[in-house]
This record gives sequence, C-alpha cells and structure tokens, in this order.
Amino acid sequence: MKRLVLTVIAAGAALTSLSAAAQFQKPEDAIKYRQSALTVMANHLGRVGAMAQGKAPFDAKAAADNAAIVVTMSKLPWVAFAEGTDKGMPTRAKPEIWKEGAKFKDLQTKMMAEAEKFDAAAKTGSLDNIKAAIGDLGKACKACHDDFRAEKYSAN
Amino acid sequence: MKRLVLTVIAAGAALTSLSAAAQFQKPEDAIKYRQSALTVMANHLGRVGAMAQGKAPFDAKAAADNAAIVVTMSKLPWVAFAEGTDKGMPTRAKPEIWKEGAKFKDLQTKMMAEAEKFDAAAKTGSLDNIKAAIGDLGKACKACHDDFRAEKYSAN
Repeated sequence: MKRLVLTVIAAGAALTSLSAAAQFQKPEDAIKYRQSALTVMANHLGRVGAMAQGKAPFDAKAAADNAAIVVTMSKLPWVAFAEGTDKGMPTRAKPEIWKEGAKFKDLQTKMMAEAEKFDAAAKTGSLDNIKAAIGDLGKACKACHDDFRAEKYSAN
Repeated sequence: MKRLVLTVIAAGAALTSLSAAAQFQKPEDAIKYRQSALTVMANHLGRVGAMAQGKAPFDAKAAADNAAIVVTMSKLPWVAFAEGTDKGMPTRAKPEIWKEGAKFKDLQTKMMAEAEKFDAAAKTGSLDNIKAAIGDLGKACKACHDDFRAEKYSAN
C-alpha cells in the first residue's frame, strides 16, 4: 500500500513537500506557494470587494463563502517566508522581511485578526458590516505591502 | 465609506476581480488563479502525503488541518477554466479542456469527491484510513493530469 501511495503521489500530484523538516524543498517552492496563497486570498477578497463597491450585486451567501476562504488563506503564506527564500524565482518580497522580522510578524498578526473580523462580519449577512470590515482588512494588507512588498518582481 | 473602501482596496490588495460578471478581468488572471489554487492544494496534500509515506512523523491534527485545506482548494480552480483562458500566460492546460468539457467536468467531480473522502478519512485520525484515501485522491488527480495537463508550459 505504501508503495502504491508513493507511486501515485509522485506520478500525479506534483507534490512539493516530502518531509516535515523540509516543507519546501527549494526556495522556489516556498516563493511559489506563498504567492499562490496570496493570489487566492486576493481573488476571493476581490469578489466581496466588488459587492462592497456596488460593482457586483450583494449576495450574502457568496460573500460569506468567499470570506471563509479569505480567512483560511490569510494564515498560510507566512511559513513560506523562511530564511533563504529571498530569491529563487521572481518575487516582490523585500529584503526587509528578513531584517525586520518582528515588524513583519506583527503586520501578519494584525492582518489575520482583521481577516477573522471580516469573516465574522460576512457571516452576519449585513453589507454595512462587510463594508466596514473589508476597509479595515484592506488597510492591514496595505500596511504590510507598503513596507515589505516591492513595486516590481526581482529578476530571480 | 464606499470611497474609502474603494481606495483602500485598489491601493492595497491587488484585487483581480471587480465584478461578478467578469470574475477574472483577463485570461491571465484566470490562469494565475487556477494555478495558484492547485499549487496550494498540492502543497497541503503533499504534507499529508509525507506522513502517509513515512517521510514525516504522523500528526493526526496536522493531517486533518491540511486535509481541510485540500478539500477547500479542490473546489476552486474550475471556474477559472472558462472559454478563452487557454492562453494569456504560460499554462499547462491542454486545448482538450475546451473540446472535451463533459469529460473534464466529470474528472473534476470525481476528484472533488475523493478530496471529500480524504478529508473525512483525515478526521478519523487513522493513518491507515488516510493512506487508503490519499491513494484514491492521487489517482483522481492523475486521471485528469493524464488527459488534460501538458508536460510543459505553453510559451504564453
């Protein structure tokens, strides 16, 4: 059974992590993973953002479903900003991430807290609640981007 | 308030979708989103795969947490395989996706069902249950990759 699993996994699922100690085998894997988690998060936040801006009809169920994905994704990227993952593929992560770790962590924590509040707001089904919470979450995203995300991708 | 939300969102969160009708503004957005969702899924599946293979210590709580992310992610990519998203940035999506839609959809449905079973297995806390379920899920991943995923990325 173990051999079957091994074969199937290796053949099929393009798995990037094969041990707990080396969750990401290469810096590139970590960069790709954290960019992916943030891309999915931004997309689902955007779906609710469109409702908050009146650019899409308000759908309370869809807003709550999207917010649940946002809060799940908000927790994922941070483990992938490990030491040594400042390059390996194009990234907008600034070197300051690894120089000002405490500040970076503080901004992560604040964003995750705002994501939880946003999720709670979406669950109330009130568009006004959602508008307030998404504004605060957007500010928490921006606070980290301002200090730790470069305008352009690095060359590698 | 609406203006504040608009400004904050535009400035901070790099949102890719601004209306329900145009969930993805450009084919590139759809391709990036679906690749991101599948990358996150593969990573978390891989973390449990490492336990199933004995390459990482079995941690029932971590396995269940990762499986919950896998099942969430399993549902996301498909909306982003819309008509016209066969190119726009490098992709491994084969043209057959848009020629054999019913078959592609059937394989999505099977994979999502196996992901649900995998999640249920992980919740039991039994490594044997997880090994069986992850093998079936890996086969469902592979079945779709065999027919619909190219070996190499397209040039654009």
